[in-house]
Amino acid sequence: MSPKEDIIFMKRAIALAKTRKGLTHPNPTVGCVIVKGGKIVGEGVHLKAGQPHAEVVALKKAGSRAKGSTVYVTLEPCAHYGRTPPCSLELIKAGVKRVVVATLDPNPKVAGKGIENLRRAGIDVTVGVCEEDAKKLNEDFFHWVTTQTPFVVLKIAQTLDGFIATEDGESKWITSQDSRKTVHRLRCESSSILVGVGTVLKDNPQLTVRLVSCEKKPLRVVLDSYLKIPESAKILDNSAPTLIFTSKGDPQKIRRLEERGFEVVKIPAEGGLLDLKEVLKVLGKREVVQLLVEGGAKIFGQFFRQKLWNKLVVYTAPKVFGSGKPPFEGFKLTDPQGGEVLRLENLKRIGSDIYAEYYPLR
Amino acid sequence: MSPKEDIIFMKRAIALAKTRKGLTHPNPTVGCVIVKGGKIVGEGVHLKAGQPHAEVVALKKAGSRAKGSTVYVTLEPCAHYGRTPPCSLELIKAGVKRVVVATLDPNPKVAGKGIENLRRAGIDVTVGVCEEDAKKLNEDFFHWVTTQTPFVVLKIAQTLDGFIATEDGESKWITSQDSRKTVHRLRCESSSILVGVGTVLKDNPQLTVRLVSCEKKPLRVVLDSYLKIPESAKILDNSAPTLIFTSKGDPQKIRRLEERGFEVVKIPAEGGLLDLKEVLKVLGKREVVQLLVEGGAKIFGQFFRQKLWNKLVVYTAPKVFGSGKPPFEGFKLTDPQGGEVLRLENLKRIGSDIYAEYYPLR
Repeated sequence: MSPKEDIIFMKRAIALAKTRKGLTHPNPTVGCVIVKGGKIVGEGVHLKAGQPHAEVVALKKAGSRAKGSTVYVTLEPCAHYGRTPPCSLELIKAGVKRVVVATLDPNPKVAGKGIENLRRAGIDVTVGVCEEDAKKLNEDFFHWVTTQTPFVVLKIAQTLDGFIATEDGESKWITSQDSRKTVHRLRCESSSILVGVGTVLKDNPQLTVRLVSCEKKPLRVVLDSYLKIPESAKILDNSAPTLIFTSKGDPQKIRRLEERGFEVVKIPAEGGLLDLKEVLKVLGKREVVQLLVEGGAKIFGQFFRQKLWNKLVVYTAPKVFGSGKPPFEGFKLTDPQGGEVLRLENLKRIGSDIYAEYYPLR
Repeated sequence: MSPKEDIIFMKRAIALAKTRKGLTHPNPTVGCVIVKGGKIVGEGVHLKAGQPHAEVVALKKAGSRAKGSTVYVTLEPCAHYGRTPPCSLELIKAGVKRVVVATLDPNPKVAGKGIENLRRAGIDVTVGVCEEDAKKLNEDFFHWVTTQTPFVVLKIAQTLDGFIATEDGESKWITSQDSRKTVHRLRCESSSILVGVGTVLKDNPQLTVRLVSCEKKPLRVVLDSYLKIPESAKILDNSAPTLIFTSKGDPQKIRRLEERGFEVVKIPAEGGLLDLKEVLKVLGKREVVQLLVEGGAKIFGQFFRQKLWNKLVVYTAPKVFGSGKPPFEGFKLTDPQGGEVLRLENLKRIGSDIYAEYYPLR
C-alpha cells in the first residue's frame, strides 16, 4: 500500500478522533480505521473514559474481515491491562496483517511496548504517519500525562489595538457571536475553565458551555485569594461543578459555600497571588487535562510571567478602543528586540475577527 | 467568448497593472491585453505619467492583428485629449471588435464617456469584469482623483498585545525582516511617507525605500508644529525629497533648512496639533496620490480621531511586551460594544508575523 493511501486512511482516523476531542479526558482521543482490499471494513473511536478503546470498537465492526487487514490508529495501541485487555493483543488475536500508527504513547515508560507486542507477533508496523497532526490532536493529554499538570490554554479576546477591556474595565462582547461560539467549543474541549475573582466581580460570568451542544460540564475554577466572591455570583449556581482556590478566606464563608456544594481549596499565596504551581498540581491530580484560562489581565499576566502556559489563543475584533486594559498585567520591557517571543501556528478569520494560536518557543 | 475566458484575460491585465502599482502616480496603473482567436496578440501596461497609456502600448504590439480582436483593459479607456489622443479613438481606429472594461473612470464627470465613444462606433462593450479587484488596484488613485486629497494608509507594527513601542518609547525591529521588506514595498507604492517629529527625535529614521528595488523616491514628510527637527536628522539628507510642515518654526531655522534644499510649509495648528486637513490639501495639490503614515502614536491617533484615513495595515509580531505604547494616542471609550468598528479585508502570515488590512466602515 502506498504512503499516499496511508495518509488518506490516517486522516480519516484523525478526523474520527477529532469528533471526541476533550470528551475522553483523562484519556486521549483516539480514532481507528480498518482497511482491507482498499476498502474500510470497520472504524471506531474511543467514546469516553470507561468505554472500549477505538481499536476494539473498530475490530468489532470489522468482525472476521479484520483478518489480513491493515489497521490505522492515531495513537500507539496500549500494551497494559486496564479496564480492558491491551489493544495490541486484541489486534494480534484478530489476525491483522499490518498496523499503521500515527504516534507513540507519550508516556516514555511505555512508549514502544504496544508496537513491540505487534512486531513480535509478526505484524508489519509503520509508525509516524501524520504524526504532527496526531500529536496536536492530543496536545493536552500528552502534556498532562507526562507532567501530571493541566495543559494551560490562555484565551484572550481583544481589540485590534490590544485591549481586553475599556479603561473602566468593561469587556463584554468585544468579539463577534461567531467567535464566541468557537470559545464555547473550546470550553467544551477543556476539562476546566478558570477565571480570577476580579472577572467574577466585574463580569459575573456563568462560565458554562451554552452556544454549542456539549456532553460534559467543565469544572469552573475561581482564583480568589481573599474569598471576595459574592455568594450570589452566577458561577455559584448548580449548572456545573465549581471549585474556588483561596488562601485567606473567611472560614464561615467557606463553610457556607461548602454547604451549598461548592469546593473550596486552601493553598498558599504570596503578595495576594495564589501559588499557581500548586493550583495546577491540585487540578492535575483531579484529572484536569486541559485548563482554559479566561482572564482577566492579572491572571493572564501571572500565568505568562511564570511561563505556566502551553497555548495562547487570541481573538482580535476589528475595533479600536484607543486606551484600556492590555491583556498581560505586570510586565515591562525595555528592549523591543527582546520580549517574550512566541510561535504563531494557526491563523484564520472567524466572522469579522482574527483567530490566532500561539505556542511558547521554549 | 465565455465569461470564464473574460475573467482569465482580465486577471492577466490586472496582473500587468499590479507590476506598476504606485509607479504611475498621479495616473492610475492600467493593464491591457488584446486577444484574437483565444490567443493574446498584444499586451501593455502604462509605465508612468507622460508615457503612452496601456491600450496604446498593447495596440502597437498587436499591430494589424488588433483588427477584429477583443481588448481587455482594467480601466475605462479615456475619452479626452491629454498628452496623447484618447484611447477610445485609438481602439476604434484599430478596428477592434469588442472591449471588456473592468471598471469605469472614477471621475463621475467623465465616467462612461470612453465607453460611449466605443459603442457609438459599433464596438461591443462589456463593463464590470473583475470590477472589485480593479477598484482595489487603484484605490489610491480613485480616492485622490475624486477628493483631491491623498489616500491615507496608516501602517502599524505592533506586538500581539498591541504595543508599537516599549514604555521607554523604543520601537525598532518589533516585526521580522520579511515584514519590513513588505513595508518597503508599500513605501515604494506610496507617493509620500509621513511621520511626526516625535518619531524623528526617537528613531531617527531615513524613510527611504531600501529593502526592495524601487524606481522612485517617495516624498518624505514630517509634521513638526514647533520645528523641533534636529538639523542632523537622517531624514535631512539628499537621498529623497523632504517636506516639513510646521506652524511656529523659528524663521532662521526655516531659512537654513530651505537653503539646504528642504521644503518648509507653514500651516495652522491648534493645541500643538497641525491642521491635518490642510496637510492633506497641500499634499493632494502636489499630486501625492497615496500617503503612507508611519507614526507615531500621536499621529496615528490624530488621523484616526479625525477619520482622515482610508486604510489601516497592521503587522503583528509574535511578541509580548506586557506594557508600552498603544498605537492610537488620545482615545478613551467606555462601551466595549461601541468603539470604531472597521472592516477586515486581507489577512495573511508574513514570516512569523500577522498582516491584516482594515478599511473604515463609513
